[in-house]
Amino acid sequence: MANEVKLHGVTGSPFVCRVKIALNLKGIKYEFVAEDLSNKSADLLKYNPVYKKVPVFVHNGNPISESLVIVEYIDEVWKGVPILPQDAYEKAQARFWAKVIDDKCIPALFKAIVSHGEKQAVAEAHETLQFLENELKVKGSKYFGGENINLVDISATFIALWVGAAEEALGLELLPRDKFPKIKEWCDNYLKCQAVKDGLPPRELPVGFFKSRFGKA
Amino acid sequence: MANEVKLHGVTGSPFVCRVKIALNLKGIKYEFVAEDLSNKSADLLKYNPVYKKVPVFVHNGNPISESLVIVEYIDEVWKGVPILPQDAYEKAQARFWAKVIDDKCIPALFKAIVSHGEKQAVAEAHETLQFLENELKVKGSKYFGGENINLVDISATFIALWVGAAEEALGLELLPRDKFPKIKEWCDNYLKCQAVKDGLPPRELPVGFFKSRFGKA
Repeated sequence: MANEVKLHGVTGSPFVCRVKIALNLKGIKYEFVAEDLSNKSADLLKYNPVYKKVPVFVHNGNPISESLVIVEYIDEVWKGVPILPQDAYEKAQARFWAKVIDDKCIPALFKAIVSHGEKQAVAEAHETLQFLENELKVKGSKYFGGENINLVDISATFIALWVGAAEEALGLELLPRDKFPKIKEWCDNYLKCQAVKDGLPPRELPVGFFKSRFGKA
Repeated sequence: MANEVKLHGVTGSPFVCRVKIALNLKGIKYEFVAEDLSNKSADLLKYNPVYKKVPVFVHNGNPISESLVIVEYIDEVWKGVPILPQDAYEKAQARFWAKVIDDKCIPALFKAIVSHGEKQAVAEAHETLQFLENELKVKGSKYFGGENINLVDISATFIALWVGAAEEALGLELLPRDKFPKIKEWCDNYLKCQAVKDGLPPRELPVGFFKSRFGKA
């Protein structure tokens, strides 16, 4: 079977980067199809009519949308470094935490960013992050996945790069090291990993995005 | 290994019913631990500190939260009737549609219900349902899962029972048969399935809930 692998995305999207990082971890070569979100391609609209969003992953002509669904697919189809735990209970826990990051942490952090660090919004973001901090403390490991990156780490890509970029761009402190030492340590470790580095845009890109989009004039 | 299976829930929750239906499909005996949501048990708060919600599934003392995560766990641990497709691409598609139902269809339908069928809210709900209608039309099958119930069908439990109950309770029409013939046919088929029937509350329960909670005085 030919292995034609395409990823429709934009360089600055943390959700697209999740897929890039999964592909890098597995050592999969792929074609990146750069989308213009102000003028979406016919392919993107055809492949993802429900959300009309990136990332869209296309494997031998078969499109898949939604970043975590794509990452699970990649993990199942390409063996090698596993991204999900093998044990059924640990797998369920990884899926649960990835969902917490998507449903709670990222929306709360985004709200804290766009409100320029409004007190209540930051308090709500911290409340959700405290769960991740505790989880890392209990695990006592380098990554959420233990000694290797797993689905939860990949889900938290936004926290590793985008939150720091927003802090810099807008002069906020969203992730104080004294309050979240484990998350900060995790960010450092995660951003040092080669597969992650190769999947992320240069830091200037999200910094510039937050400045231009949410910066005070 | 002892197989101690507990499900913390409330009878009237469509998310709890998803888990019950999965357990019934697999023929798994379980203890139902009825929760009082106005006075949550210490166990519930301990098992699900992040969401503090039902369902919580406890297998040999190990808790799992979030209905779709639980259903995937059940499918992996107990063989027999499969709930997720075996093929990796079909599995990804099932996860995608389950996510669409959770992220788009149910919130839009709920908004249409609580607004008592406000025109714009109903139009938005119909827009999301149209994707499911098309999907059933393309598949041409009895269920989203083909000839057998799969993850997508289980995800859509709210549509099968609760939407009809809300229509009856509040005198609305949210799912007109001429507009959504395939979804209506699916509802009929789904509600006839024994594992589903055994997992659902009597229809009077959601009808009463919608009347008391959202009915006009």
